[in-house]
Amino acid sequence: MASQGKKLINDPNAVVTEFIEGLVETYPGLQYLDGFPEVKVVLRADYASAMLDKVAVISGGGSGHEPAHAGFVGEGMLSAAICGEVFTSPQVDAILSGIRAVTGLMGCLLVVTNYTGDRLNFGLAAEQARSEGYKVETVIVGDDCALPPLRGTAGRRGLAGTILVNKIAGAAAATGLSLDEVAAEAKRASEMVGTMGVALSVCTLPGQVTSDRLGPGKMELGLGIHGEPGAAVADLQPVEVVVSHVLQEILSPDTNYVPITPGNRVVLLINGLGATPAMELMIAAGKAVPQLQLEHGLAVDRVYTGSFMTSLDMAGFSISIMKADEAILQYLDAATKAPHWPVGVNGNRPPAKIPVPLPLSHSAKSYESLSRPQQLSEQGCLLEVAIEAAVIAIIDLRDNLNEWDGRVGDGDCGSTMCRGATAILEDMKKHYPLNDAAETVGEIGSSIRRVMGGTSGILYTIFCKAACAHLKANTQSAVTSKQWAEALEVSIAAVSKYGGASAGFRTLLDALIPASAVLQERLNAGDDPCTAFLLSSEAAVAGAESTRHMQAQAGRSSYISSDILATVPDPGAMAAASWYRAAAMAIKNKYQVHE
Amino acid sequence: MASQGKKLINDPNAVVTEFIEGLVETYPGLQYLDGFPEVKVVLRADYASAMLDKVAVISGGGSGHEPAHAGFVGEGMLSAAICGEVFTSPQVDAILSGIRAVTGLMGCLLVVTNYTGDRLNFGLAAEQARSEGYKVETVIVGDDCALPPLRGTAGRRGLAGTILVNKIAGAAAATGLSLDEVAAEAKRASEMVGTMGVALSVCTLPGQVTSDRLGPGKMELGLGIHGEPGAAVADLQPVEVVVSHVLQEILSPDTNYVPITPGNRVVLLINGLGATPAMELMIAAGKAVPQLQLEHGLAVDRVYTGSFMTSLDMAGFSISIMKADEAILQYLDAATKAPHWPVGVNGNRPPAKIPVPLPLSHSAKSYESLSRPQQLSEQGCLLEVAIEAAVIAIIDLRDNLNEWDGRVGDGDCGSTMCRGATAILEDMKKHYPLNDAAETVGEIGSSIRRVMGGTSGILYTIFCKAACAHLKANTQSAVTSKQWAEALEVSIAAVSKYGGASAGFRTLLDALIPASAVLQERLNAGDDPCTAFLLSSEAAVAGAESTRHMQAQAGRSSYISSDILATVPDPGAMAAASWYRAAAMAIKNKYQVHE
Repeated sequence: MASQGKKLINDPNAVVTEFIEGLVETYPGLQYLDGFPEVKVVLRADYASAMLDKVAVISGGGSGHEPAHAGFVGEGMLSAAICGEVFTSPQVDAILSGIRAVTGLMGCLLVVTNYTGDRLNFGLAAEQARSEGYKVETVIVGDDCALPPLRGTAGRRGLAGTILVNKIAGAAAATGLSLDEVAAEAKRASEMVGTMGVALSVCTLPGQVTSDRLGPGKMELGLGIHGEPGAAVADLQPVEVVVSHVLQEILSPDTNYVPITPGNRVVLLINGLGATPAMELMIAAGKAVPQLQLEHGLAVDRVYTGSFMTSLDMAGFSISIMKADEAILQYLDAATKAPHWPVGVNGNRPPAKIPVPLPLSHSAKSYESLSRPQQLSEQGCLLEVAIEAAVIAIIDLRDNLNEWDGRVGDGDCGSTMCRGATAILEDMKKHYPLNDAAETVGEIGSSIRRVMGGTSGILYTIFCKAACAHLKANTQSAVTSKQWAEALEVSIAAVSKYGGASAGFRTLLDALIPASAVLQERLNAGDDPCTAFLLSSEAAVAGAESTRHMQAQAGRSSYISSDILATVPDPGAMAAASWYRAAAMAIKNKYQVHE
Repeated sequence: MASQGKKLINDPNAVVTEFIEGLVETYPGLQYLDGFPEVKVVLRADYASAMLDKVAVISGGGSGHEPAHAGFVGEGMLSAAICGEVFTSPQVDAILSGIRAVTGLMGCLLVVTNYTGDRLNFGLAAEQARSEGYKVETVIVGDDCALPPLRGTAGRRGLAGTILVNKIAGAAAATGLSLDEVAAEAKRASEMVGTMGVALSVCTLPGQVTSDRLGPGKMELGLGIHGEPGAAVADLQPVEVVVSHVLQEILSPDTNYVPITPGNRVVLLINGLGATPAMELMIAAGKAVPQLQLEHGLAVDRVYTGSFMTSLDMAGFSISIMKADEAILQYLDAATKAPHWPVGVNGNRPPAKIPVPLPLSHSAKSYESLSRPQQLSEQGCLLEVAIEAAVIAIIDLRDNLNEWDGRVGDGDCGSTMCRGATAILEDMKKHYPLNDAAETVGEIGSSIRRVMGGTSGILYTIFCKAACAHLKANTQSAVTSKQWAEALEVSIAAVSKYGGASAGFRTLLDALIPASAVLQERLNAGDDPCTAFLLSSEAAVAGAESTRHMQAQAGRSSYISSDILATVPDPGAMAAASWYRAAAMAIKNKYQVHE
């Protein structure tokens, strides 16, 4: 079952140096110390100016936890990050180089995660640097709440709570505090935070095989960040249940790991472990906040959701809770240039989110307020006649459309179009404001949208709404033939843009585009509108017929051979030509009656 | 093989609303429109003030691409994001609600990814909003470079390049440009960018089984962001090769998708697809930059590395390249409060990173400059005698230490300690500056570090360096007995802090802690230093013997039963007592000779 882990890397032994090279390419504010591959130290590009009057803050440890810690280097947070090989503490000389590089007269604080290797190597580097005359303090962070208190040298592991401690230390240093003061703030913060993790998968080291330790449907609780087994394996539960369990463990009065009691203020950090999508982290955050508020009686002052301290490609998250007070919030909120410290999280929040109310339609006319006018204007009469003729033509053509569509598609083109046509006929009698051409065209779109469905329904609605918007914006009472022609052009453009089709794609546009062209051409040539409309409708019909020889570019028909396609015209184009032709004929007849 | 995908979610049908709830908990600057579950719109909490004099910029589409697009809502980027269900275009009414909510007199730009559903739904909403009197423009982004140019309605897919277009549109709007101008900037940007993706795994929809389409050792090239199969499947290659291929496809003169030619300036976006660790993304960035520079002759002005537009839990990345000019860089650099737009990426970068040179040791004395003094001071003589006696005691005790260690550990305690002792003896003759007690103690630490290795080597080095630092900082020429006692106390504290052990843990501290206590007690009581030292060394020996009755707390011995442990003392404690006792005896003998 186990197979070589898939990673987008080069040499498994060079992942850390190559990570650093990419990091400094991405962030111009970061630099690295010379000395690859032994010395892997990322530091602020502006370290020299900061050394003069600020305490330096350094953190680090084994790699594989990116963005920790190198991604948190920057003004207001870390001065430098010392990177070991994957899951391996950095060498003493690398740590010492980092200390020497960024430490000025104010001294340097090392924030160290509580693992034996890190403690010893950072500890030795600190003592060596001290013996060289540097002022160095160290704070060891062990925020893990997953395991019962142990007697022994190991103690609680350093987990994602370290990120919060580093931010507080960096912000304290940035205010100009002395080394002792910065160390005291960091130590205090480290005693306020507890963390516990949950994983769905085991991480895979570069070049290693993937472990199948965690089977389907299982999760691991209380894990470390180095692939070490968790405190317990359990069946995967809804994340709400998982979050509840983790919060209870962190806040357990039995272990008393964090000094948090009901009524306290806290900050919450939801930390992805490397392969956890943002969606899942946010869902966890959305469940953790109300649980902390309602079940634990805590005020949640800040929420940090993201991937801060990962475990290579592990799927899962850890939750950290830190007791908050004004000083801690100020340090957490303080500006920083560290690229991976989250932004947009500051500021006090209302106790609950109040959804913005859904705005009403901008259009004053609601569905009910529309009504058919008592007395139709001349244009209203023409519109009524044209619409009626157009929809009746579609209703009459239903079976033909279905038959054509049946040979190249799913055979419902006629039924769908007929459904729209029938709705238009009914709605027109009830409420189309026929004396207002723009609104009437818009209402045709609404009728279509209400009943038609499918791509053709949306495209016809777009067609009508685009015409409506154009007419509204460009006409007063009566619409001139030229304005109608412009509206047609605009509508065709909208259908083409949003539908993605052009001339020759075997769609309704192959009827409408030639119709629009002829209409404008004849009007420009001085033809009377009625004649121009009629001639353009002939172009529509010819255009629709010509689709027999076109290859379909989209939809089901695109899978049909050209031999079969040649036996039928495109039903959509034929429908368009049909209603357009019928409207033109109706207008002509109406005018002839008047004459 | 296929099994239910593991996710940290609750109801698979509620993932998008629950994501939004977590998002607004995390970011106080974001709000959502009422209307769950149909209307899923995230908008700026300060939308009302922005509507007055700025064009609104809206993007959106199916969910599953987090942080896109909701995570990019904020001043300077998006006014609102319309979220559909996972991989499903949002409904027209939801889009319309979003438009109505954030659009003022300046109008609104919709940035739409080129998928049929998004085009139709955003298109219809745009036309509906226009017919209601809103000023609305749309720009459709299709940046995919994976497939050869197709004739047809589908066109190129919208991928992560959309994020750059949204940033440019949002920044243009923030400067107060008109709707037409903002749309023109967005359209121009959309024509400048090309994208191609690579995946190691297929994404799993919430509640669905995991696909085994991609087997071990395979990758998919030119994939979409909805789990659709890629253009090709290939054997997994080093990421350098993968990046090279992707860059060539994007910049191919055959397809001519992006108007980029040698000598141009570009920005690079490395986008994780959901389950890709930051380490791998940075490695890809680190390889892409020099390839763009050297193989394609392009200047890389900005690098954005992170997870911007994902595909649920897909492992892999996409690369986007946008042609850059001053206007585009200004828009990309402009300040934004959108929480997921990367920070720390601005500013022109030097053509190559210049590693910061490794600083020299702060200590002026290099290894070579140290030398044994020609003439030893009284203190120098005592120091030499004490060191010599101490190391000889260890050398003499080697076999005993090995034997004791063999019963409870790996049996090399004596050999390891002897290696250190021998080195001290040799180095002392060569270069210990014996008249300078602080430096001499520091050099003992260096000798140990050079040869001893293991935890005991590091702890003894810490012991010596801590003493050295304390003596340096607190003494002038001759060191008083009280100062020696203080240095011992400081050294023990350092070993305890970094080693993690306390009294009773069956370590060397069980010899040194009682020795230190008695030394201080006798000196405070007024005993002469020599007597005090001698008495304290008796306490060291008694302490070491008492370890027989202690349970080990760390290391291999912690797995040994107390019955076996009781047969031997802790070899580390015995070694410490032995050298300490020998030193005390030697000093006493020296004084007696003098007297």
